[in-house]
Amino acid sequence: STLRTFLWHTFIHASMNSSMFSERSALASWDPFLAFVDHWEEKTKSFRSDGDLCFGQPQEKPLAALTETMGRVIGAPQDSDTFAYRVKIAEVQEAIVRNLQQSRGLTVDAEDVFTTNGALSALTLTMTILANPGEAAVLVSPIYFVYRQQLELMGIEPVVVPTTQDFDLDVAAIRRAITDSTRFILINSPNNPSGKIYSMETLQKLTDMLNEVNEGRPDRPIFVISDEAYNRIVFDGIDFHSITEIYPYTIMIYTWAKTLLCPGERFGYIALPHIMPREVRTRLRDIITRCQIAGWSKPNNTTALTYMHAERDGMRTDLTVLQRRRDKLHLCLTAQGWTVFKPSGTFYMLVEVDKTMFLSAEDFVDALAAERVLVMPGFIMEIKDHVRMSLTANDAMVDFAIKAFAKLRKKEAPAA
Amino acid sequence: STLRTFLWHTFIHASMNSSMFSERSALASWDPFLAFVDHWEEKTKSFRSDGDLCFGQPQEKPLAALTETMGRVIGAPQDSDTFAYRVKIAEVQEAIVRNLQQSRGLTVDAEDVFTTNGALSALTLTMTILANPGEAAVLVSPIYFVYRQQLELMGIEPVVVPTTQDFDLDVAAIRRAITDSTRFILINSPNNPSGKIYSMETLQKLTDMLNEVNEGRPDRPIFVISDEAYNRIVFDGIDFHSITEIYPYTIMIYTWAKTLLCPGERFGYIALPHIMPREVRTRLRDIITRCQIAGWSKPNNTTALTYMHAERDGMRTDLTVLQRRRDKLHLCLTAQGWTVFKPSGTFYMLVEVDKTMFLSAEDFVDALAAERVLVMPGFIMEIKDHVRMSLTANDAMVDFAIKAFAKLRKKEAPAA
Repeated sequence: STLRTFLWHTFIHASMNSSMFSERSALASWDPFLAFVDHWEEKTKSFRSDGDLCFGQPQEKPLAALTETMGRVIGAPQDSDTFAYRVKIAEVQEAIVRNLQQSRGLTVDAEDVFTTNGALSALTLTMTILANPGEAAVLVSPIYFVYRQQLELMGIEPVVVPTTQDFDLDVAAIRRAITDSTRFILINSPNNPSGKIYSMETLQKLTDMLNEVNEGRPDRPIFVISDEAYNRIVFDGIDFHSITEIYPYTIMIYTWAKTLLCPGERFGYIALPHIMPREVRTRLRDIITRCQIAGWSKPNNTTALTYMHAERDGMRTDLTVLQRRRDKLHLCLTAQGWTVFKPSGTFYMLVEVDKTMFLSAEDFVDALAAERVLVMPGFIMEIKDHVRMSLTANDAMVDFAIKAFAKLRKKEAPAA
Repeated sequence: STLRTFLWHTFIHASMNSSMFSERSALASWDPFLAFVDHWEEKTKSFRSDGDLCFGQPQEKPLAALTETMGRVIGAPQDSDTFAYRVKIAEVQEAIVRNLQQSRGLTVDAEDVFTTNGALSALTLTMTILANPGEAAVLVSPIYFVYRQQLELMGIEPVVVPTTQDFDLDVAAIRRAITDSTRFILINSPNNPSGKIYSMETLQKLTDMLNEVNEGRPDRPIFVISDEAYNRIVFDGIDFHSITEIYPYTIMIYTWAKTLLCPGERFGYIALPHIMPREVRTRLRDIITRCQIAGWSKPNNTTALTYMHAERDGMRTDLTVLQRRRDKLHLCLTAQGWTVFKPSGTFYMLVEVDKTMFLSAEDFVDALAAERVLVMPGFIMEIKDHVRMSLTANDAMVDFAIKAFAKLRKKEAPAA
């Protein structure tokens, strides 16, 4: 496969470490995601607009409400504080706290909310606070594609535990992966790429298991980092809940990039639930604030104020549009004979590789690309035999893709 | 002294490390700067507006041109790319490259410019790329107050070398501080807090010394990180130049926070000079891009576009105002008998503690605070017997401060 050859080549290139830079940067710099992007850049310039279901990028104009709010914040009366350095802006934290309480019944103190320059740098900051170099973190595969790089940059060892066949947490397998050097578990629900939302029943099992493990190490409880980037991109009117509500050592990470379909604007937060012991929160407040003063993941004032209004207004991308695309893709591709996992949330859907037709996900990706449709091969997310499609494609792209999938069926189906 | 007692107390508190979090976060979390801020928060709420010469905060309304440009960027016609994730925005990089060429004759390739979420996170990113945990970096004191925390968070050992009596680089002392584990030297010119701009003659000496050292370690040259946050805040019509122009292993860091007096908005860049060997730049491009994809120091699209216009328009805070304040403070305080170091750039001026009047800088700070004037004690910047004043105070505050300094002279001068 063209894709496989290309990736192997870039891997060899990146592995030629230079002693000129730190080992951690070399470790983190073979990024299969970026290698894949490089591949597409070259290959797909000419047909980007036909069937791009690859990335979670907006394919339509931005939310008018978002740009209007930005304009309003910039246009508001200004004083010497407008662009002054501010450690925190209390009214922004309060808007976030109110939203968590009202939408999910989740109690968080305003002082335990830290607004950040997006979710990813908030994640790296949190990882760095929780684990020493050489210690370990448990990830659950399929994994979001930059987690591994983030951990490696910070010298933390990623231990990857696969989910069950239907993408649920395998609590027993997670238990087996925990060692004395494990400092935290990183979970992502709603999950990118599977779209799975872990049930509270499963999360209670995880909580019970962790509470039991913690009894044997009272000074070093295992933390959970709950990446909730997609917690407002949920379908079928589901009430979203997460482990943040039940496990006291959870650190929640959020970004508006998905809710408002604006990944090029960076704003998110770290939140510590009220059920976390007070002395732990006090210490974390101190550490996170000091890391932010040292420049880590500090958002613009104007960005913070913009999203405060978004929060108060309950601003959100139109979920009915995403749900309609999900339903159409699921219905049509299933009817064509593909095995598709129907997501409960997120922008994504996983399609299984039909092994009677293709040797690997890379071959499947190449075959779709030949029909001018872009999807992401599973290896980037450390899952075999699947490709990921994004629902942020516009309706025309979705229709184009459905036809392309149908063509593959006709063209490549083995003779009966 | 009240201030000294308070700081000692907070130090003891921060040193009580908890095994719950990583050692690096504990190491980095006693931050004398923040301890000092906490002290002032309590103490000075009531007289913040009288004589606040403490921080480099704007004390007047923002630049109208900046907010107008922000409004223009938000109000521009929008398409699906407006808020999409963009690895780079070529026209922003080109505006930066043009400015460096025109203002300083510094040649940088557009691909070697990386826009960032401010200068501080760009600095941490650069440090992480250059040094492994346990390796060392040379700092020059007085130091900018978060450098030490940044290095400690990344496990890099800070080795601090004092400047000469007139705040110039002591190249021989820097040479003696370099060991096999030294990976980079961090310099800051124009310097916060001294306001010193290192001469090209001194920087050539540093360059020659480093080139000589590098001959003995050809695979691991010593890098220089050139923090040039204040490179457009220069007085007396000086043409600013830096080591970025002559030492090939220099990584330049810039932020608009000073130029546009907007520290609450975060936008800066990393630039690699064209004189850096091409293969080193190629590798760094790759590493920095991948770190940014992993979420490190990624700016908003709209922020990048705003500062692109600022760059094209040559937008800058009014230097004549800052220079007038510098001259007035320097003239009046010198006339009163204080020893003041006259800065060539930056927002700051150092005043020496008169040891016939005060035991320490902390006592001097306390005495000024009793007159409702806030300045920063030197220990935060690892310099003894000095306090720092900021020229971002407004004119009324400067006048208020001049009177307060005069009162101290009258009150506390020893009988002749």
